[in-house]
Amino acid sequence: MSYTETDLLSINTIRLLAIDAIAKSNSGHAGAPMGLAPLAHILFTRIMSFNPKNPKWINRDRFVLSNGHACMLQYALLHLSGYEVSMDDLKHFRSLDSKTPGHPEPHETPGVEVTTGPLGQGFANAVGLAIAGKHLAAEFNRPDFDIVNNYIYCIFGDGCAMEGIASEAASAAGHLQLNNLIAFYDDNHVTIDGDTNCAFREDVVMRFKAYGWHTEVVEDADRDLEGIEAAIRRCHKVSDKPCLISLRTTIGFGSKHQGTCSVHSGPLAADDVKAFKTNAGFDPEQSFIVPQEVEKVYQDRALEGSEKEKQWDKLFARYQQEHTEPGTDLTRRMADLLPDGWQKSLPTYSPKDKLIATRETSGLTLDSLQAVLPELMSGSADLTPSNNTRWPSAIDFQPPGLRLGKSNWSGRYVHYGVREHAMAAMMNGIAAYGCLIPSSGTFLNFMSYAAGAIRLSALSRMRVIYIATHDSIGLGQDGPTHQAVETLAHFRAIPNLMVWRPADGNETSAAYYVAMTSKQTPSMMVLSRQNLPQLENSIIEKAMRGGYVVAEVGESPAAITLVSTGSEVCICIDAALMLRDRHGVGSRVVSLPCWEMFDRQDKDYRLSVLLDGIPCLSVEVLSTYGWERYSHEQFGLNRFGASGAYKDVYKKFEFTPEGVVKRAMATIDYYKDAAPRSPVNRAFL
Amino acid sequence: MSYTETDLLSINTIRLLAIDAIAKSNSGHAGAPMGLAPLAHILFTRIMSFNPKNPKWINRDRFVLSNGHACMLQYALLHLSGYEVSMDDLKHFRSLDSKTPGHPEPHETPGVEVTTGPLGQGFANAVGLAIAGKHLAAEFNRPDFDIVNNYIYCIFGDGCAMEGIASEAASAAGHLQLNNLIAFYDDNHVTIDGDTNCAFREDVVMRFKAYGWHTEVVEDADRDLEGIEAAIRRCHKVSDKPCLISLRTTIGFGSKHQGTCSVHSGPLAADDVKAFKTNAGFDPEQSFIVPQEVEKVYQDRALEGSEKEKQWDKLFARYQQEHTEPGTDLTRRMADLLPDGWQKSLPTYSPKDKLIATRETSGLTLDSLQAVLPELMSGSADLTPSNNTRWPSAIDFQPPGLRLGKSNWSGRYVHYGVREHAMAAMMNGIAAYGCLIPSSGTFLNFMSYAAGAIRLSALSRMRVIYIATHDSIGLGQDGPTHQAVETLAHFRAIPNLMVWRPADGNETSAAYYVAMTSKQTPSMMVLSRQNLPQLENSIIEKAMRGGYVVAEVGESPAAITLVSTGSEVCICIDAALMLRDRHGVGSRVVSLPCWEMFDRQDKDYRLSVLLDGIPCLSVEVLSTYGWERYSHEQFGLNRFGASGAYKDVYKKFEFTPEGVVKRAMATIDYYKDAAPRSPVNRAFL
Repeated sequence: MSYTETDLLSINTIRLLAIDAIAKSNSGHAGAPMGLAPLAHILFTRIMSFNPKNPKWINRDRFVLSNGHACMLQYALLHLSGYEVSMDDLKHFRSLDSKTPGHPEPHETPGVEVTTGPLGQGFANAVGLAIAGKHLAAEFNRPDFDIVNNYIYCIFGDGCAMEGIASEAASAAGHLQLNNLIAFYDDNHVTIDGDTNCAFREDVVMRFKAYGWHTEVVEDADRDLEGIEAAIRRCHKVSDKPCLISLRTTIGFGSKHQGTCSVHSGPLAADDVKAFKTNAGFDPEQSFIVPQEVEKVYQDRALEGSEKEKQWDKLFARYQQEHTEPGTDLTRRMADLLPDGWQKSLPTYSPKDKLIATRETSGLTLDSLQAVLPELMSGSADLTPSNNTRWPSAIDFQPPGLRLGKSNWSGRYVHYGVREHAMAAMMNGIAAYGCLIPSSGTFLNFMSYAAGAIRLSALSRMRVIYIATHDSIGLGQDGPTHQAVETLAHFRAIPNLMVWRPADGNETSAAYYVAMTSKQTPSMMVLSRQNLPQLENSIIEKAMRGGYVVAEVGESPAAITLVSTGSEVCICIDAALMLRDRHGVGSRVVSLPCWEMFDRQDKDYRLSVLLDGIPCLSVEVLSTYGWERYSHEQFGLNRFGASGAYKDVYKKFEFTPEGVVKRAMATIDYYKDAAPRSPVNRAFL
Repeated sequence: MSYTETDLLSINTIRLLAIDAIAKSNSGHAGAPMGLAPLAHILFTRIMSFNPKNPKWINRDRFVLSNGHACMLQYALLHLSGYEVSMDDLKHFRSLDSKTPGHPEPHETPGVEVTTGPLGQGFANAVGLAIAGKHLAAEFNRPDFDIVNNYIYCIFGDGCAMEGIASEAASAAGHLQLNNLIAFYDDNHVTIDGDTNCAFREDVVMRFKAYGWHTEVVEDADRDLEGIEAAIRRCHKVSDKPCLISLRTTIGFGSKHQGTCSVHSGPLAADDVKAFKTNAGFDPEQSFIVPQEVEKVYQDRALEGSEKEKQWDKLFARYQQEHTEPGTDLTRRMADLLPDGWQKSLPTYSPKDKLIATRETSGLTLDSLQAVLPELMSGSADLTPSNNTRWPSAIDFQPPGLRLGKSNWSGRYVHYGVREHAMAAMMNGIAAYGCLIPSSGTFLNFMSYAAGAIRLSALSRMRVIYIATHDSIGLGQDGPTHQAVETLAHFRAIPNLMVWRPADGNETSAAYYVAMTSKQTPSMMVLSRQNLPQLENSIIEKAMRGGYVVAEVGESPAAITLVSTGSEVCICIDAALMLRDRHGVGSRVVSLPCWEMFDRQDKDYRLSVLLDGIPCLSVEVLSTYGWERYSHEQFGLNRFGASGAYKDVYKKFEFTPEGVVKRAMATIDYYKDAAPRSPVNRAFL
């Protein structure tokens, strides 16, 4: 079907909506929406399957705008297509508490799949979405039942192309042969600093070929609508590669300043807007106009989408009859429910159990859970044997035909490669797809490489589980380059991210329980390399509260509270015994594995843990930064670590019962004349 | 000159030293040193110019081992070449307080240029070193005076090749046509998770071609010594591209398990070690052996290096006579001294000056300083107009012939592209080269993308200046994806990193003064997008102390201290006036632009700023995480921000004088019966 005047009018309507919204808010980026309007129009009216009335339909095609600053493009399309994005929402673009924020966020705007704007993230999310699609197709599809067969369409610009995260993700996608992914490179030659020639002269298409992608080039994507569509349809025929379509576009197409960096950001000048409208056949005095024939094009397409979902519903109803077990499973997972009684699989431990690192208790937990949670999809950034992320029976997620052991697209273990940042963003994509819970690991220190994406897990409320092993100087010989110091402070300061540092196996199980049941919150499991004892009083139900009294030693009332996490809790318990035996001092030991959960407890409970009237000393072998919130005095590591056998390093920095006792006695002495208030008490909320 | 038995013996000696050291420490990575020994031997005996007696000679060739876990390779070569790395140091590999830590660190080991181990960093450092070399050559070389003409040699493995940071840096290097950079890809097909086929099947050589690199492939780099040398010599003839030499090697060459991931980490089995030694002609019962003829090869080469430096000294002596001005300048810079009186160029401001954002005062400072500090090299990750990092007269650092405005290799402004992580690591490389002070910008929120490299600036004590603008919800419409919340906590928690959040122009000048004079400490300038007033009592000398009393308002003694930074200080001053006028309450306002500097002041001073006996309320429009260290109560933003005009967003979250007053009154009320201790007082250090 060829393109008509109505299509051109539609494309200019998209441009007009972008221009008008950006003019009204006096903020935003018009250049990319104007340049990308032809592609977006084709995608939304001829290519993609979606139902605006049910943005959560599992088999919809996904659209990701990785250059999220171009979000007026997406908002305009969502509005035209009939999603719950009204003209009024467009008029409140970028204004406080609107549905149309400065960059796309899925929890704010129906039809937005992932949070984009921080460059490169959307592209890597798209690879994650494609992984999820491939995996669910392999898991659920049966002969005559293509339950999952959608595509992921992603637009990215020069900024994304330059970001390392996108390079990592593109390399992974090529390896994984994700042919359900079609990415469009908006090759417009303009960035904020000017012509891309000032910093970026590589051959992007050749680079993607090197990654193993199928590539297409559309030389005049401003005008060659047939060419764009034909390229997409050729990509649909590719069976073993992700596809790149490089589109030569003109940024700000239709503006007087098209093709220059002056149209990248900010509103167009009033006369430029008027000239554009006049040239495009609109009334230059009117704003936010959608011609009727354009409305109809999009309404018709929405009806087609609604019809497609109905057909899919019928297919799925038959599937549930013919394939009862997977049908029931998928139904449960689409409803975002965990299977009844799954938590009974959480391992429990007693003090008689052997010394074992929390990275190992984490591994045991994953192994138990994978058997009852088919939605669990694990992985590692090339530290599989160190992160304990792979259960013994795991099948690798790999393209068919790779013949690397037992592996195929139904596998639930992803070898992400040494690509921490993309791994995190791919997990965001997997979680965003639905029906899957991604968990993956690297060393705690290298979670920093993924900071940009981890923050977006929290902002976009994705249930993603980060497994951060080798969590301190306790990793020993690898030395300061690998020993986290500031990392806990960093991640604890991110809102809506649960950072767990369990002290033993039961606390590890508690962490996983809360992580799995927190549908809108990512979690990070911070785990030891070194072996630790199973504590006397650690109980899953207590640890779930984020903080609890794990030991009371010696005379009551106690003279001091020792508050600690992870591998230092057992040292504190030994210190408490030493305080009693050598100094006749009674003490309490508090384990505080998750501050975020502890803060959610009622005040009475928190006050019962961190008592009023006695001093509280925190003990954690990383930066003390932030610990003043839960303690009066702090013992930690406010410098970089050291390379050496782990016990030598702990000794050097006095992380021994003796070292704790020394500081506890100093603390008791300091507060002997003035009983301090509990850190829980505050002047205002 | 062909290769002899002595060369083969030398190569096996390197392998033996690596094996023995790793066996003794029972920790480390033998596989890569064994596979890379031939290349390293060629580099250190035939290619590189260096003087082990003066590891800081400015025109030495630089060697970067980006796969830093292979550090026993580097330590062995440094020992053999006669650097201050003794056989005893090798025997204490990875033990506490040794000169041979788990990964290379320049401040620990003479001859190590940059800190590597976190994958991809070294590669990007090497690109930075190459930028520095190209720039200094363009700045200082004159006809017949090739003062700077050294090469940067960098080895990297599959891990580095997968990391986004290395992709970013490689793309930048190709664009910049850095032909003084020769990178060796250790293509050994093995990573921790197994064969690279499990995650990494791209065509690395084609990818580098796409970046604009010259490429060479050596098919049998285990044996083809002539081939390796010939490839390097061909690269020396390349005039307009960085060079990649892809070496097909066998990991753990010589071990029974060579070519498998079992030789990647950990010591070789005892029988494997013995078999290796026997096969290589060593006594299997002896360890840490260097045959005399091998010693001689390296000693001869060291003498050649020493002689080369002597020749260079003569050349430079003549240069100083014939080219007095640059000669004097380079002499000063090699001595790591700033020019006399440079600080007189720091701008000063008075309250009469207009409202101006601190990103602008930062830009004005850079412009003033660049005129007196030719070592200052600025840049941005494609946010030049937003970061205010480019002074009006700047010349861009670009390859000759690009013809993008006025630009060439003598330029001091680098367009890093949208590559934050590589930018930070490239700056580490530039600083490591010497004679240059790099500074570059992005939004504060996107400094998180560079976290891995920023941490290494601090660990390796590099004077690098990060310019982090748009530092809060004050950036307005771009919304939560761009608004930093946790970021200050993250960077403040890094040891040896000075985080400055100046409140106005004078504080900005103070920040730059301290940054420039802190030779072993990186700094981050955290700067507002929005305009701010010039404060009444801000004085450079006071602000340099990291914290000071900027206002005392109303009755004395004050009932409360308001402690704040950056854009909230002026709000606190308005709140103090309101406390006086509406509530008759006296208060003090403390500006605390740099915690790291404040902590370095003596206790009396700190107590004079944060008084004993009155409550202290912190006010900062980011996470309150960490503020308990300097205040009793905290007002901040412990959630993600919002998209909207900045004043609307500030109002929404009550960052107004009224909002501060409300919390100040609650704080005063809460502490009325129990005067709190100053947060400066502690039970122990």
